[in-house]
Amino acid sequence: MNMTSAQEWIDAIAWNDDGLVPAIAQDHDSGRVLMLAWMDRTALRLSLAEGRAIYYSRSRQRLWRKGEESGHVQRLVELCLDCDGDALLLKVEQLGGIACHTGRASCFYRRWTPAQGDTPAHWQETDAAIKSPEDIYGSAQ
Amino acid sequence: MNMTSAQEWIDAIAWNDDGLVPAIAQDHDSGRVLMLAWMDRTALRLSLAEGRAIYYSRSRQRLWRKGEESGHVQRLVELCLDCDGDALLLKVEQLGGIACHTGRASCFYRRWTPAQGDTPAHWQETDAAIKSPEDIYGSAQ
Repeated sequence: MNMTSAQEWIDAIAWNDDGLVPAIAQDHDSGRVLMLAWMDRTALRLSLAEGRAIYYSRSRQRLWRKGEESGHVQRLVELCLDCDGDALLLKVEQLGGIACHTGRASCFYRRWTPAQGDTPAHWQETDAAIKSPEDIYGSAQ
Repeated sequence: MNMTSAQEWIDAIAWNDDGLVPAIAQDHDSGRVLMLAWMDRTALRLSLAEGRAIYYSRSRQRLWRKGEESGHVQRLVELCLDCDGDALLLKVEQLGGIACHTGRASCFYRRWTPAQGDTPAHWQETDAAIKSPEDIYGSAQ
């Protein structure tokens, strides 16, 4: 079947025991995966209503309007659901070109590198910060 | 700091209370996001050792060598960790060009479509199956 009814589209999502679903943000233009965050029903409804990514912050236990402090808003271009309904994919326009709180384009800036010679296996940084967190959030933080 | 020690690289991952971490699989060539699955420590170590994606199936509560039944193995090209260590990104070569058990290239084949006229908001299928599940798994399933 190709569609679900108005009452059903949000219930097609397999919310976890905490009422959350993981949401992948991908740059709609470059295809780069930017981050993984979580949404509750309110976050998802607001994301669609406002046309921007709004997550549920598990650490702060509240809605998190991505970019609310940094200005690095994610404009929602497309929203997709996976086959078993337990993951979302958001294709976004990343304002400022920075998704990560460290000032990098993507949160996935560490690449696993195998041991070689005396160097043990490690996570190698692949990206430099475009802006410093101080420049993004102000020196008070 | 640019690297973590041999003992530390796997401990840099913020495993959840169930000892799992979400892992995004992305086609390394096209950039298409293929699926979201989960890994435990064993799955991650084996993925690196064998050079293919091995997940932990939460529904079956066991290791899941992606492609073990379908042949749709994901060859591991690159493994990245996010800023706060609680999500992995696998760049993979998707053998057979099919990641989804429904026979589609990607599990994210349903796009949210807003209400229009008499048609309520719904998930619109964007991809047809490349192969039928019967052709992939055999008619016994």
